[in-house]
Amino acid sequence: MTGTLTVIGLGPGDPRYWTAAASEALAAASDLVGYGPYLDRVPERAGLTRHPSDNRVEGDRARHALDLAATGRAVAVVSGGDPGVFAMAAAVFEALEEARPGWHGVGVTIEPGITAMLAAAARLGAPLGADFCALSLSDNLKPWHVVTSRLRAVLAADLVVALYNPVSRARPWQLGAALALAAEIKPAETLVAFARAVGRPDESVAVMTLPEAVDRAPYADMATLVLVGATATRRVTGADGASHLYTPRRVGRQP
Amino acid sequence: MTGTLTVIGLGPGDPRYWTAAASEALAAASDLVGYGPYLDRVPERAGLTRHPSDNRVEGDRARHALDLAATGRAVAVVSGGDPGVFAMAAAVFEALEEARPGWHGVGVTIEPGITAMLAAAARLGAPLGADFCALSLSDNLKPWHVVTSRLRAVLAADLVVALYNPVSRARPWQLGAALALAAEIKPAETLVAFARAVGRPDESVAVMTLPEAVDRAPYADMATLVLVGATATRRVTGADGASHLYTPRRVGRQP
Repeated sequence: MTGTLTVIGLGPGDPRYWTAAASEALAAASDLVGYGPYLDRVPERAGLTRHPSDNRVEGDRARHALDLAATGRAVAVVSGGDPGVFAMAAAVFEALEEARPGWHGVGVTIEPGITAMLAAAARLGAPLGADFCALSLSDNLKPWHVVTSRLRAVLAADLVVALYNPVSRARPWQLGAALALAAEIKPAETLVAFARAVGRPDESVAVMTLPEAVDRAPYADMATLVLVGATATRRVTGADGASHLYTPRRVGRQP
Repeated sequence: MTGTLTVIGLGPGDPRYWTAAASEALAAASDLVGYGPYLDRVPERAGLTRHPSDNRVEGDRARHALDLAATGRAVAVVSGGDPGVFAMAAAVFEALEEARPGWHGVGVTIEPGITAMLAAAARLGAPLGADFCALSLSDNLKPWHVVTSRLRAVLAADLVVALYNPVSRARPWQLGAALALAAEIKPAETLVAFARAVGRPDESVAVMTLPEAVDRAPYADMATLVLVGATATRRVTGADGASHLYTPRRVGRQP
């Protein structure tokens, strides 16, 4: 008897952001595999076994999930945000390349979720309203010179830039270096947002200029999503006095 | 009495992709404003008034929604995918810049949704597993030379590229031109996916090489999301024989 493996995106933290499809997939699972704090978001119920793991062992976790599924279990690998964006889905397909004979017949399905930049953007206004990109600042899996050359390219092309994995305990300086690079390329009035833990009780969101963001970089943490605006990204005060960050859809001239 | 305006993302078409927050916001609405086919996705109920409009009048639609909210209604502007990604949220903030006195006190909220590239990526595998960007191919709101210069920059930087608004009746040639440009920059074995109407009954997904994609461009339509892979984007056959497209997380050397 062969089981199944579903990689499920839980969105930014509050179950209100789960899709109905993700809820159904969780309800159908016999086993939950994932980083402990993500597993903690899923309520206990009879018949559901949890397999928490550390944050840095995506490959081991993917193989473990495939092994479990091969024994006939309905395995759900849970991921924050969207599993396809700097998360578990790619790790599962990397593991599948090994094609271990024991895994024969296991089907893999991906259930999308609200990735951090979409949740942050919605809370801020509409900063992703024009062309944008998502870059991971982690140099665990790619050389730092690739990070900086990509960053230069997208900043010069005037895309809005969402920076994932801005810092970790082992990578304390990368965000400051990335924002300093941005400050060399973009005007000082360019707007930057730090969106931390959106959808969670400790949520905080701040909008500032690029030089202010360089100063603030040491205070960001793993739960922070950083957005660097395009030249046109601007603030508007709403009719109720609230401030919103957005990028107009129209591009007047080439940056 | 002042009303509210919520811009809601319905995701890729099937209500299974609605978030719980989007469902709640729809249940609380007195008025639905949006492009007709998006309104049709929301079931009828007593007390819900529909205001369908054409696809090309985002500014008028946003002002109409604000006018309605100003009369005390609970207005939901519905959008396919995520409202912040080439959709209605930016249009609402553009309208708010006009700050019409009648709108005083109207609060605006954005409810995120599963944008097309996330739905397409989940169906395909994990093609957005590394750095990626989202570009609109529409030259209604930006000059075509901005589109091509951005496209050159992100292809040269070896990001995965999601192309939104690839074609319309009024813009039949842009996708072919964009893919021909990609074929000048990327190797011929670069993989491209056309993901059409993901999550709808007429869904179709195809993966091909870049030269094949150039030939196929005339057959794409408004419901198609086109993904151009990075150099590393590859196909893996799953343990059940299914084919998946994914981008490994690791970058070996600079492209």
